[in-house]
Amino acid sequence: MTAEIISGTQIRKAILAELTEEVKQIKEKYGKPPGLVTILVGANPASISYVTLKVQTAESLGFHEIQDNQPDDISEADLLALIEKYNTDPDIHGILVQLPLPKHIDDKKVLNAINPDKDVDGFHPVNVGRLMIGGDEVLFPPCTPAGIQEMIVRSGTETSGAEVVVVGRSNIVGKPIAIMMAQKGVGANSTVTIVHTRTKDLASHCKRADILIVAAGVPNLVKPEWIKPGSTVIDVGVNRVGMNEATGKAILRGDVDYEKAAEIAGKITPVPGGVGPMTIAMLMKNTVRSAKIHLAR
Amino acid sequence: MTAEIISGTQIRKAILAELTEEVKQIKEKYGKPPGLVTILVGANPASISYVTLKVQTAESLGFHEIQDNQPDDISEADLLALIEKYNTDPDIHGILVQLPLPKHIDDKKVLNAINPDKDVDGFHPVNVGRLMIGGDEVLFPPCTPAGIQEMIVRSGTETSGAEVVVVGRSNIVGKPIAIMMAQKGVGANSTVTIVHTRTKDLASHCKRADILIVAAGVPNLVKPEWIKPGSTVIDVGVNRVGMNEATGKAILRGDVDYEKAAEIAGKITPVPGGVGPMTIAMLMKNTVRSAKIHLAR
Repeated sequence: MTAEIISGTQIRKAILAELTEEVKQIKEKYGKPPGLVTILVGANPASISYVTLKVQTAESLGFHEIQDNQPDDISEADLLALIEKYNTDPDIHGILVQLPLPKHIDDKKVLNAINPDKDVDGFHPVNVGRLMIGGDEVLFPPCTPAGIQEMIVRSGTETSGAEVVVVGRSNIVGKPIAIMMAQKGVGANSTVTIVHTRTKDLASHCKRADILIVAAGVPNLVKPEWIKPGSTVIDVGVNRVGMNEATGKAILRGDVDYEKAAEIAGKITPVPGGVGPMTIAMLMKNTVRSAKIHLAR
Repeated sequence: MTAEIISGTQIRKAILAELTEEVKQIKEKYGKPPGLVTILVGANPASISYVTLKVQTAESLGFHEIQDNQPDDISEADLLALIEKYNTDPDIHGILVQLPLPKHIDDKKVLNAINPDKDVDGFHPVNVGRLMIGGDEVLFPPCTPAGIQEMIVRSGTETSGAEVVVVGRSNIVGKPIAIMMAQKGVGANSTVTIVHTRTKDLASHCKRADILIVAAGVPNLVKPEWIKPGSTVIDVGVNRVGMNEATGKAILRGDVDYEKAAEIAGKITPVPGGVGPMTIAMLMKNTVRSAKIHLAR
């Protein structure tokens, strides 16, 4: 083991501490805290656990947090009306709708009904467009790519002129992080290559990477010999590869053969405890950003 | 000279012939043609010449075309009201506002006021977002990148798994064409690298390119020895490098050293007569697409 471990758990802690301070300042300045609503339809156990984590984190930061639970049989029209209520609520600065939604409801229609200026997930087409345009246009960078960029910057990795190779072209990770790293600005200005299932020589691209970002969802896809010595490796994959019989918990592996890669890379994120914990911190950061913008108006 | 020349002038002719046919079918089916309005504020000679070309092309295709000229001192509020009028006009499917606008008017505010479903230039953040999301979401791909992709496809160049290198990261060409070529789908599925002013070894990236797209705005930036033998070279640069004293016209050069590159490349676009003529054809194609969507509602 030679690589420095980039701990998402520790960086999250640092970010949440910074945000706690910012929330205090917002309360002092405007007399109210950032407001976040999490809308949960039905009782999917995984959804409940995600929403609970968001609510707990928001409350620990001092947000005004509403958990709005709706029954499984809520009509699409009623759900849209609920979103419209929060769109115009001056105490709410971020609106989250937990997915999946029941089958009788059109996900896209619901997500696109969120006021883009309160879309702290950053998935609304307006916010995707702002991200691509870049610079001052960007309002809410999507949380997982934003977390990746934050880890790269906080680990002290130079990005300007660096060769970044992004494995995977999803809307949630691959495409946005590729564009973000290629933009002008701090923590960016990189030469970026996007590789994917149709790429002919994955290995040769990975070998060029000063910063390798892997979001393919294939356990151990990236072999140790593909890692450039001294490079920074960000592993976004979270793959269940089995069950720990003693604890009853899933065994998680990333997309990179971690143990061997860590002997070659300069810096590497573990799985679990790497990119995963960052997402929620960036969601809170976007909500604080939104509150500042709304309250300053 | 060994390279096959990809003529934008000829491909434009073919596209306009196809669109003429489509306009006829639209008229037969819906009783009215595609409608396009070009809004020109003031009397900038270059703007007049661009608008005139758009109007002539639209009319030659059988569009319902309105050229709406407004005085230099129109207020921003009046211009916004004018756009709103066309946003709700059922006979208008495409709205173009010719830039630059006078200094007392906020460009961005005006362009963002156009109904995204009539934004045939594809510059509205919603359309930029839809482009990035990809697939069925895409409504109006921006005209220059769409023209580039059309030239690549119509020249018979294989894109799936091809190494595409895009030189330049502008919002008008570099970033959108990079994302378009990396997406899933026909004429795409490429491995894409975006290089720019901060890239360390431009030459080595260009040398890998099966398809090299250059949009840097620097005459002769790409040297002949950077061209991979047999590759397809798309030169988006239009640089004025002098004046022809006999004709009084500007001498135009691309970003690629054309004469020598044409001895190495498999296929190459000339300047002028390459990407330039494609843009207006794609604008017309977007307007026809918009008309079909609006009229089918």
